[in-house]
Amino acid sequence: MKNITPWLPVLGQIASYSKDKWVSDVIAAVVVTVMLIPQSLAYAILAGLPPHYGLYASIIPIVVYSLLGSSTSLAVGPVAIASIMTASALSSVVGAGLTSYVDGAITLAFLSGAMLFLLGVFRFGFVANFLSHSVISGFITASGLIIALGQLKHLMGVSVSGHTFFELAAHLIQSIPSINPTTMAIGTACLLFLVLARQYAARGLGMLGLNKSTASTLARMSPILAVCVSTAVVAIWSLDQLGVAIVGDIPTGIADPKMPSITREAVEALLLPAFFIAIIGYVESISVGRTLGAKKGEKIDSNQELIALGGANLASAVAGAFPVTGGFSRSVVNFDAGAKTQLAGIYTAIGIATASIFLTPYLYYLPIAMLGATIVVAVLALVDLSILKHAWRFSKSDFTAVFLTIAITLSAGVEAGVASGIIASVLLHLYHTSRPHIAEIGLIPGTEHFRNVKHYNVEVAPQSVSLRIDESLLFSNANYLEEFIGEVVRERSDLKNVILHCGAVNTIDLTAMEMLEKLNADLLHQGIKLHLSEVKIPVKSLLEKASFLPHLSGQLYMSHLQAFEDNC
Amino acid sequence: MKNITPWLPVLGQIASYSKDKWVSDVIAAVVVTVMLIPQSLAYAILAGLPPHYGLYASIIPIVVYSLLGSSTSLAVGPVAIASIMTASALSSVVGAGLTSYVDGAITLAFLSGAMLFLLGVFRFGFVANFLSHSVISGFITASGLIIALGQLKHLMGVSVSGHTFFELAAHLIQSIPSINPTTMAIGTACLLFLVLARQYAARGLGMLGLNKSTASTLARMSPILAVCVSTAVVAIWSLDQLGVAIVGDIPTGIADPKMPSITREAVEALLLPAFFIAIIGYVESISVGRTLGAKKGEKIDSNQELIALGGANLASAVAGAFPVTGGFSRSVVNFDAGAKTQLAGIYTAIGIATASIFLTPYLYYLPIAMLGATIVVAVLALVDLSILKHAWRFSKSDFTAVFLTIAITLSAGVEAGVASGIIASVLLHLYHTSRPHIAEIGLIPGTEHFRNVKHYNVEVAPQSVSLRIDESLLFSNANYLEEFIGEVVRERSDLKNVILHCGAVNTIDLTAMEMLEKLNADLLHQGIKLHLSEVKIPVKSLLEKASFLPHLSGQLYMSHLQAFEDNC
Repeated sequence: MKNITPWLPVLGQIASYSKDKWVSDVIAAVVVTVMLIPQSLAYAILAGLPPHYGLYASIIPIVVYSLLGSSTSLAVGPVAIASIMTASALSSVVGAGLTSYVDGAITLAFLSGAMLFLLGVFRFGFVANFLSHSVISGFITASGLIIALGQLKHLMGVSVSGHTFFELAAHLIQSIPSINPTTMAIGTACLLFLVLARQYAARGLGMLGLNKSTASTLARMSPILAVCVSTAVVAIWSLDQLGVAIVGDIPTGIADPKMPSITREAVEALLLPAFFIAIIGYVESISVGRTLGAKKGEKIDSNQELIALGGANLASAVAGAFPVTGGFSRSVVNFDAGAKTQLAGIYTAIGIATASIFLTPYLYYLPIAMLGATIVVAVLALVDLSILKHAWRFSKSDFTAVFLTIAITLSAGVEAGVASGIIASVLLHLYHTSRPHIAEIGLIPGTEHFRNVKHYNVEVAPQSVSLRIDESLLFSNANYLEEFIGEVVRERSDLKNVILHCGAVNTIDLTAMEMLEKLNADLLHQGIKLHLSEVKIPVKSLLEKASFLPHLSGQLYMSHLQAFEDNC
Repeated sequence: MKNITPWLPVLGQIASYSKDKWVSDVIAAVVVTVMLIPQSLAYAILAGLPPHYGLYASIIPIVVYSLLGSSTSLAVGPVAIASIMTASALSSVVGAGLTSYVDGAITLAFLSGAMLFLLGVFRFGFVANFLSHSVISGFITASGLIIALGQLKHLMGVSVSGHTFFELAAHLIQSIPSINPTTMAIGTACLLFLVLARQYAARGLGMLGLNKSTASTLARMSPILAVCVSTAVVAIWSLDQLGVAIVGDIPTGIADPKMPSITREAVEALLLPAFFIAIIGYVESISVGRTLGAKKGEKIDSNQELIALGGANLASAVAGAFPVTGGFSRSVVNFDAGAKTQLAGIYTAIGIATASIFLTPYLYYLPIAMLGATIVVAVLALVDLSILKHAWRFSKSDFTAVFLTIAITLSAGVEAGVASGIIASVLLHLYHTSRPHIAEIGLIPGTEHFRNVKHYNVEVAPQSVSLRIDESLLFSNANYLEEFIGEVVRERSDLKNVILHCGAVNTIDLTAMEMLEKLNADLLHQGIKLHLSEVKIPVKSLLEKASFLPHLSGQLYMSHLQAFEDNC
């Protein structure tokens, strides 16, 4: 039991499961189920699939996440960003005839699931850290704008295509003459209702005497009211005869029982898009999980989350559906509604399964315009252009990265956007880490302390220079250090000793070690000795492994003071 | 004049140009010219082009580098690694019918030149730092093995193809029955001569009474003796009639005067290979330049080197040739022969131009097997399998990266090899930098010093924890810090204060700033105050820009001692 608990965190919860927790979990599950039904249908349409695939993606994957995941609040399922990335990836691959749309979606879910799972098993969770959060916010904002604009076609009852913001905008403007007025009326009404409900429903219900948390939970369920009313309106007046697009027949069941055909060509073409979906989905999901986890004092294990999300996506492939991840709004609802354990997810899955078996016939007349309105409202919550203002005020390098990511996403689509976001992140990271902080230090008179010569009035030795390296020595900064010392040596022709204070050097890698050897030889060639001081134990053992110490032209000092006094 | 000197470093040399320097430069140029003639023919063949393209690549590009480059020793021209990468990139693109071989080579030179030039102009020289030197050594070693094996066909007089070590080995074994014995005899003789000359010629000449440096310079010129003798042997006995492949007619001139056709499809297909050639060529070149520069106390400016190498490659495209870079062995020869300024390069170009106008008819009978032997000897000097032993002893993460790069290069070819080398480098870098060193610190009794609680016997406050962050706060380590503090808080349920000692934090980026805001809010939610101490001026101004300080639940302390005493 103890051996498998780390792999199945839910087991740790079952031992202490009480009736109180059961009640809380069931209430949360009901709320999330009601919220998830219209959302999952809508996101399937956004991904370019028939709506019921959204239900498939919301049953088995949720169960698998609940078994493997470490967050008790995260609600997994189809989300906006992963859905538009799916649509974008499939349009070119299906266009090239490499696979069918549904098989392509399954391939994407399978590939991104397998990648996440393997990253988790090999404990590569740290890789996600190299995505700058501000760059990702920029990407999500731009994607949200594209998604919202793309949904206007459903609200207007027209048919347009395009993967970039400007393409979509141009096509929408051209299609204004062919607007279907009935669809437009329904779409506008749904959109207005959802926006107003989001803004005022909780307050309104509060004024009716409900307590604050009940009111806000009920308010979150207002979309289901819009579903019922809009479906009834279309059914009663047979508005589908007037050209209003409706959901139509939905097969009942919890998975697509067909055997998918995953071809080698499709796998090759979808590898990179699947990686992008996996990495963006994971980053979104873990940041939601950590935010909610911190409020409960709950530990979110990044590698376990990779395994759980990977499992959920593999399950989505088995269910015949498309990539899923932890969604922000539904996880917040799950948390607010009081979910206590991962079992709430399993109850949600039971709820959706029940709905997809018994309720789907009633969704026949549900207008697509209502689903479009749901998506617009959901994604506009993701749009946060203030990140640009923030970044501008804060630093120009952050701003450039965020701005480029937004501009490229809007003008070249989500795939180019996420690729440029990753590249911008890596460049930012390299920019920040390739220049270690190096300070020339001197002795504060009358003490044993050494401080930066720029900020303090200190003593320095005439033929020696003391340099404090404030970072570990790695291949990424080895060149910089070499150039820095080269510059110091060129400027001071009388130099006889270079003393490196290594108190902040926590490790040395092989490239930096080779640089030190070369530096030692180059300095010796110019008649300058290299000394090291305050070397930490693990660093000293690396120096010994590389047989560096016997070649060191100067000495290894325990204390910098000793080094300073010896070479005064 | 002062405004353009930084862009044309050679101008700085001309002002102080003396007769002594002129003599030194001319001598070095003669030695390098003699060495470069067989090498440039050989590398053109390695790149898959007719031999005289190697001469084109050794004239105009050298002049351009001499004008723009900051190294007085670097000798630019065709090199082994860039040549095999050119062959590898072109085989698939030409195979797909996107361009002709020569036009493809020009496209590659143009693209990699443009990339290097732009990277230099925008001062992106730091990007090359993210390639781990040990990983690149592994890549070069594996490429050297592939090149050497690939040249055996010229020494055996057979025709085999293949881009991986194992493909080549299998094809060579199959072609043993069709070996041309005369070619094999010439090839073996040349190879033996070159190996022995490399090993013993300098010593032998020394014993004849020559001084050490003259002897070693003359020894380096032994390949030209092999060129003369092998050509004479083939010509006198008409061995080409026996199937010995010869160089044949070489057009005279210093450039290919045809207008190349650079197509959009070819550009798209060659963008990534051109980037790989550019980055590997630059890394090779700058490391040679730095090594030799350090011996002269000369500053090598990485951005100026990018501009100069970019210019040299653009010039190579204009000359109708293929990618060039700074070569290791010829730069060492240039240095040893006494080159004093970049003008030595211009004299070399004049030498090669003279040779390609007047001497090429005499190279008609030069056997290809001799050029193959030249390449084998040159690249075996690059092969250094001891990097594996070194890396193994030093650290397992470095070893894994080097081993994978070598294995992938040998089994999947140079393009896959360099791609995996870059990925391995980035992963190593992220692995090292995503976990900042964080130490819990306490007060050494009777002093004002704080030290790591793990290593020192120190006082700690019961309801407070002091954490010293030993690195800048960046998006790459923000998550780690958040998780680290979350763990500390979960373990110590009585905690009321978290004090971050920021003395080693040199900067904060936007993502880390957002993390701090979130951490502050999350801790406050659990009744814990966050304090910061020893914050540096630039970091404090970033905290102010982000309007963080008014929201900080605790206080900002100048000294950690004050923070410690206030929260004891």
